[in-house]
Amino acid sequence: MTTATRLSTITSAEELARLRATLPGHRFVIPADDPLPLDCGVSLGPVTVAYQTYGTLNAERSNAVLVCHALTGDQYCAEDHPITGKPGWWLTVIGPGKAIDTDRYFVICANVIGGCMGSTGPSDPDPATGRPYGLDFPVITIADMVRSQVRLIDHLGIDRLFAVIGGSMGAMQVLQWAVDYPDRVFAAVPIAGAAYHTAQNIAFHEVGRQAILADPDWCGGRYLEHDISPRRGLSVARMTAHVTYLSETALHRKFGRNLQNRKELSFGFDADFQVESYLRHQGSTFVDRFDANAYLYITRAMDYFDLAAEHGGVLGKAFEGTRVRFCLISFTSDWLFPTAESRKIVHALNAVAANVSFVEIESDKGHDAFLLDEPEFFRVLDGFLKGCAEHAGLAEAGS
Amino acid sequence: MTTATRLSTITSAEELARLRATLPGHRFVIPADDPLPLDCGVSLGPVTVAYQTYGTLNAERSNAVLVCHALTGDQYCAEDHPITGKPGWWLTVIGPGKAIDTDRYFVICANVIGGCMGSTGPSDPDPATGRPYGLDFPVITIADMVRSQVRLIDHLGIDRLFAVIGGSMGAMQVLQWAVDYPDRVFAAVPIAGAAYHTAQNIAFHEVGRQAILADPDWCGGRYLEHDISPRRGLSVARMTAHVTYLSETALHRKFGRNLQNRKELSFGFDADFQVESYLRHQGSTFVDRFDANAYLYITRAMDYFDLAAEHGGVLGKAFEGTRVRFCLISFTSDWLFPTAESRKIVHALNAVAANVSFVEIESDKGHDAFLLDEPEFFRVLDGFLKGCAEHAGLAEAGS
Repeated sequence: MTTATRLSTITSAEELARLRATLPGHRFVIPADDPLPLDCGVSLGPVTVAYQTYGTLNAERSNAVLVCHALTGDQYCAEDHPITGKPGWWLTVIGPGKAIDTDRYFVICANVIGGCMGSTGPSDPDPATGRPYGLDFPVITIADMVRSQVRLIDHLGIDRLFAVIGGSMGAMQVLQWAVDYPDRVFAAVPIAGAAYHTAQNIAFHEVGRQAILADPDWCGGRYLEHDISPRRGLSVARMTAHVTYLSETALHRKFGRNLQNRKELSFGFDADFQVESYLRHQGSTFVDRFDANAYLYITRAMDYFDLAAEHGGVLGKAFEGTRVRFCLISFTSDWLFPTAESRKIVHALNAVAANVSFVEIESDKGHDAFLLDEPEFFRVLDGFLKGCAEHAGLAEAGS
Repeated sequence: MTTATRLSTITSAEELARLRATLPGHRFVIPADDPLPLDCGVSLGPVTVAYQTYGTLNAERSNAVLVCHALTGDQYCAEDHPITGKPGWWLTVIGPGKAIDTDRYFVICANVIGGCMGSTGPSDPDPATGRPYGLDFPVITIADMVRSQVRLIDHLGIDRLFAVIGGSMGAMQVLQWAVDYPDRVFAAVPIAGAAYHTAQNIAFHEVGRQAILADPDWCGGRYLEHDISPRRGLSVARMTAHVTYLSETALHRKFGRNLQNRKELSFGFDADFQVESYLRHQGSTFVDRFDANAYLYITRAMDYFDLAAEHGGVLGKAFEGTRVRFCLISFTSDWLFPTAESRKIVHALNAVAANVSFVEIESDKGHDAFLLDEPEFFRVLDGFLKGCAEHAGLAEAGS
């Protein structure tokens, strides 16, 4: 931690507001008198959207790339994180000369609504009561997240995004953009994604939510008003999820049955195996940067995602007549969002004669591969974006 | 529930002792003056082994089949369960005319030590203090479980078991029997098993344990002395594990994204999806029949299992010179104990020219397939046992 403040040590709404105010970056506010209509029927306002940008918007405002983050990501994709001090989560692909070249593109990354890194979410004060929303915050959807991003893009004076790119839940947002705003997206890159959350995906999320709800310190979602934090429940939720982000092969290579700090089994319940110690660490550091209610809301948004549902259950109909150029990318060892799910989207796009590339990257790193060092993935993304930039008539970097 | 008593409503050691006394079946006691030596170095005694039998032991005492149960199983494999009222967990294969034919074989099934269905475990009184053991109970291993079963077999006057059969943790016990007591086993059938617990297996168990330890009602393992029960933590542990027992395909076929009791999304955190409702039910019914500390101990025993470790890391050495007839069975959609793990055992057995059959059953039911209706599995098991019975000179049923 680089700052003295960890989210998990914050136990009041006032402290949280103070921390929020210190987070670096931009804020855009959707005003209460022009609120954001949500899928649940509620109109939400005011809504703050916290976002970061990298690179420069060109005079034609045609070089903007929207990067959409995953469940536990945030807007700090290409710089050190202000709370954890860790490098930005997508520095592997965003930066000068990288696939998402900040010498060429203007990169925008916004914290999703419902989140906890500056955008309006369940820990923010409810204007109606002055108390933190808690479970009075409306359940949001992926389409709602995208709606708030559209308002941001409007605010920035951008008619059409050159590209929308994201992995996992980010891929869901990319697909939603392409379906709901096809004229405002030139290229869409959904990575390690799916057109809907599967029963198994929902099941793992439900386990995590139940772990949070089972923690007495959750207090029916009103923990901020009780000066406590459901650390243990959130930590267990994170541990469960984290196992699903890695492949069996990756876990085996990283840890196997290696013992932690000792040569023999302890015949006890301390972390004997390195994999146990690693998971406990993942759980305990996560609670220092994430809010339990935000975890409930964002997992719910993912569970609700089903792109075909609004189109009579036929995915192809969602894309009819689209002129968006798609590049779908999946990873062989990703069992949470397996290649088969990306392939279903490709088939739907093929059925409507859309412009689509599809690459399955050989990797043993599991779902998290899109965040890790995967040179073939970088090459595919780089090549696709360069090709699109040429078609879009974007100037080369430095030219 | 058929009885008025659910384990989760029992909050004192006295109540628990009363329930235990009402559980039907046999008890064998390893006396304190001839205690059971455990891998951790402790000698445990007295140790009660609760067991059931089906069929009749023949005059030669040569037709005994030991059935080894999985993590949350128990000795009631072929009769209604005295607490839940549900049919025995392996009535699919045990009974007159079935693969494990009770007209022909004498079936023995014992609750593992460390368990909670009558065999000595962490909720039993510690003779040293009179209080329930809690975490003072020694950590046990699969080899310790088998050691207690050997004492039981001795007690029953059986020199050699015709067969040892089990799935999942049961398969671990089968393998341990074959390695440690090769002269006392004619045939061994490890189903949906592995020679060691993988990093991913350990990871999922650790998540479950952390869910229990995170429940304040766990009280450092002394919940029985505080008149409470860590229901919530144990329920979350069960939910996590349960997801791993099913394949993605099975979850999809059973539930898909079907909604529970309503036609539209609720935009809330109730169980919207059938899969959520199902998991919650799995969690809440489990705590009525299982003890949280027993869950800690038995998962730990599985994590510690590594058959090659005691043989210089070379699995083949564990089986050198074996005359046991092996039949390994795996299921295509089992991702928790995948076919590759059974295959490793087959390779090790082949390397020492052992007598081994291996069948991978096509199934989309996941790890739990061995407990479900899988006719091909029944045929394989039936055929293998009949062949072995012929070789062993066992009389046919009814002859």
